[in-house]
Amino acid sequence: MTETMRAFVMDGIGHVSVRTKPVPEPGPNDAIVRTTHALICTSDSHTVRGAIGPRTNLTLGHESVGVVHRLGSSVEGLRVGQRVAVNAITPCYHCTNCLRGFPSQCSGMLGGWKFANVKDGTLAEYFHVNDAVANLAPIPDDVPDERAVYACDMMSTGFMAAENGDIPIGGTVAVFGAGPVGLMAIAGALLRGAGLVIAVETVPRRQELARQFGAGAVVDFAAGDPVPEILRLTGGEGVDAAIEALGAEATFINCVRAARPGGTISNVGYHGEGDYVRIPRLDWGVGMSDKTIRTGLCPGGRVRMGRLLRLLQSGQVDPTPMTTHRFDFGEVEVAFDLMDRKADGILKPLIRFGPG
Amino acid sequence: MTETMRAFVMDGIGHVSVRTKPVPEPGPNDAIVRTTHALICTSDSHTVRGAIGPRTNLTLGHESVGVVHRLGSSVEGLRVGQRVAVNAITPCYHCTNCLRGFPSQCSGMLGGWKFANVKDGTLAEYFHVNDAVANLAPIPDDVPDERAVYACDMMSTGFMAAENGDIPIGGTVAVFGAGPVGLMAIAGALLRGAGLVIAVETVPRRQELARQFGAGAVVDFAAGDPVPEILRLTGGEGVDAAIEALGAEATFINCVRAARPGGTISNVGYHGEGDYVRIPRLDWGVGMSDKTIRTGLCPGGRVRMGRLLRLLQSGQVDPTPMTTHRFDFGEVEVAFDLMDRKADGILKPLIRFGPG
Amino acid sequence: MTETMRAFVMDGIGHVSVRTKPVPEPGPNDAIVRTTHALICTSDSHTVRGAIGPRTNLTLGHESVGVVHRLGSSVEGLRVGQRVAVNAITPCYHCTNCLRGFPSQCSGMLGGWKFANVKDGTLAEYFHVNDAVANLAPIPDDVPDERAVYACDMMSTGFMAAENGDIPIGGTVAVFGAGPVGLMAIAGALLRGAGLVIAVETVPRRQELARQFGAGAVVDFAAGDPVPEILRLTGGEGVDAAIEALGAEATFINCVRAARPGGTISNVGYHGEGDYVRIPRLDWGVGMSDKTIRTGLCPGGRVRMGRLLRLLQSGQVDPTPMTTHRFDFGEVEVAFDLMDRKADGILKPLIRFGPG
Amino acid sequence: MTETMRAFVMDGIGHVSVRTKPVPEPGPNDAIVRTTHALICTSDSHTVRGAIGPRTNLTLGHESVGVVHRLGSSVEGLRVGQRVAVNAITPCYHCTNCLRGFPSQCSGMLGGWKFANVKDGTLAEYFHVNDAVANLAPIPDDVPDERAVYACDMMSTGFMAAENGDIPIGGTVAVFGAGPVGLMAIAGALLRGAGLVIAVETVPRRQELARQFGAGAVVDFAAGDPVPEILRLTGGEGVDAAIEALGAEATFINCVRAARPGGTISNVGYHGEGDYVRIPRLDWGVGMSDKTIRTGLCPGGRVRMGRLLRLLQSGQVDPTPMTTHRFDFGEVEVAFDLMDRKADGILKPLIRFGPG
Repeated sequence: MTETMRAFVMDGIGHVSVRTKPVPEPGPNDAIVRTTHALICTSDSHTVRGAIGPRTNLTLGHESVGVVHRLGSSVEGLRVGQRVAVNAITPCYHCTNCLRGFPSQCSGMLGGWKFANVKDGTLAEYFHVNDAVANLAPIPDDVPDERAVYACDMMSTGFMAAENGDIPIGGTVAVFGAGPVGLMAIAGALLRGAGLVIAVETVPRRQELARQFGAGAVVDFAAGDPVPEILRLTGGEGVDAAIEALGAEATFINCVRAARPGGTISNVGYHGEGDYVRIPRLDWGVGMSDKTIRTGLCPGGRVRMGRLLRLLQSGQVDPTPMTTHRFDFGEVEVAFDLMDRKADGILKPLIRFGPG
Repeated sequence: MTETMRAFVMDGIGHVSVRTKPVPEPGPNDAIVRTTHALICTSDSHTVRGAIGPRTNLTLGHESVGVVHRLGSSVEGLRVGQRVAVNAITPCYHCTNCLRGFPSQCSGMLGGWKFANVKDGTLAEYFHVNDAVANLAPIPDDVPDERAVYACDMMSTGFMAAENGDIPIGGTVAVFGAGPVGLMAIAGALLRGAGLVIAVETVPRRQELARQFGAGAVVDFAAGDPVPEILRLTGGEGVDAAIEALGAEATFINCVRAARPGGTISNVGYHGEGDYVRIPRLDWGVGMSDKTIRTGLCPGGRVRMGRLLRLLQSGQVDPTPMTTHRFDFGEVEVAFDLMDRKADGILKPLIRFGPG
Repeated sequence: MTETMRAFVMDGIGHVSVRTKPVPEPGPNDAIVRTTHALICTSDSHTVRGAIGPRTNLTLGHESVGVVHRLGSSVEGLRVGQRVAVNAITPCYHCTNCLRGFPSQCSGMLGGWKFANVKDGTLAEYFHVNDAVANLAPIPDDVPDERAVYACDMMSTGFMAAENGDIPIGGTVAVFGAGPVGLMAIAGALLRGAGLVIAVETVPRRQELARQFGAGAVVDFAAGDPVPEILRLTGGEGVDAAIEALGAEATFINCVRAARPGGTISNVGYHGEGDYVRIPRLDWGVGMSDKTIRTGLCPGGRVRMGRLLRLLQSGQVDPTPMTTHRFDFGEVEVAFDLMDRKADGILKPLIRFGPG
Repeated sequence: MTETMRAFVMDGIGHVSVRTKPVPEPGPNDAIVRTTHALICTSDSHTVRGAIGPRTNLTLGHESVGVVHRLGSSVEGLRVGQRVAVNAITPCYHCTNCLRGFPSQCSGMLGGWKFANVKDGTLAEYFHVNDAVANLAPIPDDVPDERAVYACDMMSTGFMAAENGDIPIGGTVAVFGAGPVGLMAIAGALLRGAGLVIAVETVPRRQELARQFGAGAVVDFAAGDPVPEILRLTGGEGVDAAIEALGAEATFINCVRAARPGGTISNVGYHGEGDYVRIPRLDWGVGMSDKTIRTGLCPGGRVRMGRLLRLLQSGQVDPTPMTTHRFDFGEVEVAFDLMDRKADGILKPLIRFGPG
């Protein structure tokens, strides 16, 4: 008899529901994880609104931690019952792009993103993890689930934005957008030794969190063009790294303008609209400014996860101020609706699953 | 009594002439070089057409070699009479951008470009070189002027395009545009160990030179969209590095399309038109493809020049097949006109100066 | 009934023989390759002499190409009958060190080296390949086996030595030792754009090959201390990269001496003796010279192999002048003996296997 | 009439005194700084004991801040009376090694170190600075001298040790030696995002400071071999970066042992003894472990200094807990004697100069 479970699914564009599904089975290299805690991500909303096209009965979610439930026959070094975290991105690590050093592009552009895209996601009582040896990271005993779950996407993506910025120790950084990823980019910039992080944000609560996560200055883009103020704060020079954490063309353009010659524009925002994203020609030095534009997608894998968990363990980073709401899995639809409407000042809702 | 010399100058937009000017004087850190050979660059045409605004009595040119004529009081390690090459870009190496590692952006964006921009250029019987210790490179005895002069811009710029491409040994490269810079980008890609260089070019003579400089395949963009053919030649994967050596938005867009996820778009073309240069959103992986867009401006300085001269000395590179025409300095106006009209299949005209 | 095959094995220290063994079976992620051509490596001799301790009935060899004979149940994207090359190093790509970017250190220091070390090698009619998707590289139709087989170790190791040297385009390199790996390091240095490669070698035939592979100068270390001559050839400065391709402490010391400040010592030689390898303190700038000492072990994987095969396809590198001898597999003991004694000017013996 | 000043000089090996000397004169590119605060460095003791040979009437010191007193005729962008910090290392930025990107090796190995080596140092009422535009960094108004002075050497050197370690975000680091440079290496490792820093130190007060600067664990090497404990603290793997901040061969050997495969040994200690510094062969993976050994010498220049001053301004780093003693310049001999004897728990004595 097949075991069943509850899962939070997308059922066509604009529709979500909780459904009963079979608990997934592991192939030889896979694992099944019983979920204990999860977060909901803005990109789950994008998906339901149709960003990746129609989907039926697709389990949502990609930010979950849990306990190993079953292991495939070829999996070594892990054990049933172990607490584990899994990144939103689960590469195979054997294909061409993985071997080239770009596992987030596994098997094809953005192909490392499998959960709630090409397979069921993690907002379910159980979820399937391919290539378990590479993708499951044990959670240290002294790191509670509600912290560990931030390693799945928010920390990895936000820190990547900072790492891609190639920030010199003591350098200057502007982070455009202080949503969850932007806030983690601020924290990440400081973890790379930035001497000044300027947050560009207009929502007062996010401005406040930006300062709490270490921004030394906040510029309100609703009050006018933020670039002159960024230049003023950097002695007229512009920043060493400008991080786009919003996914808007206007913001991307401002990043190119705010970066100094030789600086880096690190894009982490999802650009969802239009055929093109424009580079301002003169601010780009007619294509000769030594400015570099980098991009990336949430780095995954057990080593990355282990490093992020270590930062939670040492207390160097505490993302939990972003946890504005808490729900049981039974209330996931309420949580999703709040997140979808960005209501009630929600940043990240934590979903708690019942005992297995 | 002031020494005088002949110089080829721009006299307002669209006007050039040969004029008599005083031989320049060196400050404490400077040198005066007596010119022996020069090349004319397409960017001289752009300048005369108004690309950097109006100029009066501005000596043109930035690709010249010669002999040290005078040295400033603080200059050490060089001697009058020495054969020297000077890069098109002459940074101070003491300002903020220079110290940050971006000397081509000396004192401000693109500020390392001083010749025929903010000071007189090198198409004159004598020219002034700031920061001589850093900017003058002795020419080895066995490298004739007519080879050495290619180090001033063509080799340095074209090779930079390849270096910025971060080409893995055995990797694949597409070079868009097989003008002089594109041809040197092809040579540069092979010098970095590319396993396959695809030239995208439509002019038969340039296609032929592309093959001669090592392109393993040539795609004619006039025959249709070149990107599908690039994909075909790379097993459907796209190239590790796509080099824009033309300075056209359509070409830049094709570079983003042709680069594989995790690949690099290395821009070396001068983008002279429009307020924006567009990135194709989906080919850019909605800003998450791990594709990197890099830019730069001809790297200068005596160390760079010394390395390029060494490659000429060993014979690993021979750019002289690009020398399609030869003139005495007395004929410089004829040479410039040919270059300006891109007539007679001209690629690079070599200008010979009389004995001093 | 179990299929059997002939294999060339080590049977205790100092003893080799040809034995009959079962053809290996593939696990779910594995492949069995039928061997067509192989090379013998000096490290096979080291192994037989006891470098890694005693072994019984261990098949030797790690440089073989062949045809896919069987595939494990989870292997996708490959097919039986396909011509394939396999690197000497076959990482799992899923363990911690693999995910950290150091697959040659798979599961532990030097742990990517499995063939003829912790499992049977490839000098047999059939051999087993773990993690086949990641480790098998299709051989292009126009690359014959006798070329492709050089990608397994010689090219990958020698080129790595050059890549680790961080050679600037036009830079200077000294390669100490012009055996097969050293010769490929010379070729690799030129593939990275070295302006001058100095080979340090005393055997006339190897000196000659060094020149053939592109060395611009040869220094005979038997004629006296080679470092002053290297300094002379580089204008007193020393080289940008000094490559140790011999595995001798005296040579390593000379590499540190020959490298300029800020230069790189790239070690690729196997150091088999003593408890320590010494760095000369003053030449190392009392530990402050910006000199970097790098090491590595033959990079493997299908992407690496694919790039090397592409260089063979384009003809940019032709290692076959190193093939001094050819044998059928039936003569493998003769070949091994010659190699072991370094007799008859042997560099690399090619072993041909009969039709399957 | 020549202006005179007091200077703290070395007068032969083992002898120091305060002398009257002429105030130095600036050449065209130079500046004269009036000293306001200084620190004494252990390397001043080494110098007096003969580490760089005999010297007569050589002013000691290389960690000073002050006020611009005079400027050379070619110096732009600075003004008399401005508060400035000068790094211990003052490269020319125009010579070959500077242009290659290794300014600390200016003109030759370790040649960027000019103060109290090849010219008078900074423990005087006035001192001379070559290449003032590149070497003088304005001190922000809100950074007091007693903090700024730590940027001259301690922060720059210690942070370099961490930067050279190539620490991944969340990675593990061992710092051997928690003297002033080691303490700044600990702070630097955390500024690069280390997840765990292990200090190896035996002196209780230094152990305490190590924890205060962020070490998550302290290992006492006097209590036995520290490497097994480092392995235990890193789950048996060893550290991503091992920093040698002591300058002892035994410590260097332990660094190689403690670094995991693919890890980095970052040497910052001055190795003053013996002809050789030994690498343990097997822990080095017989030269194939992907372990990298890096070195360096205090990075200088106004950009570096500006970044370090920014970190002091933002309060991300506060090195002043290392200021164990304070003296007026009139007491410099007492201060030096304490420092020389490492008496009274001294770490760094701050020297205050009288008003100009």
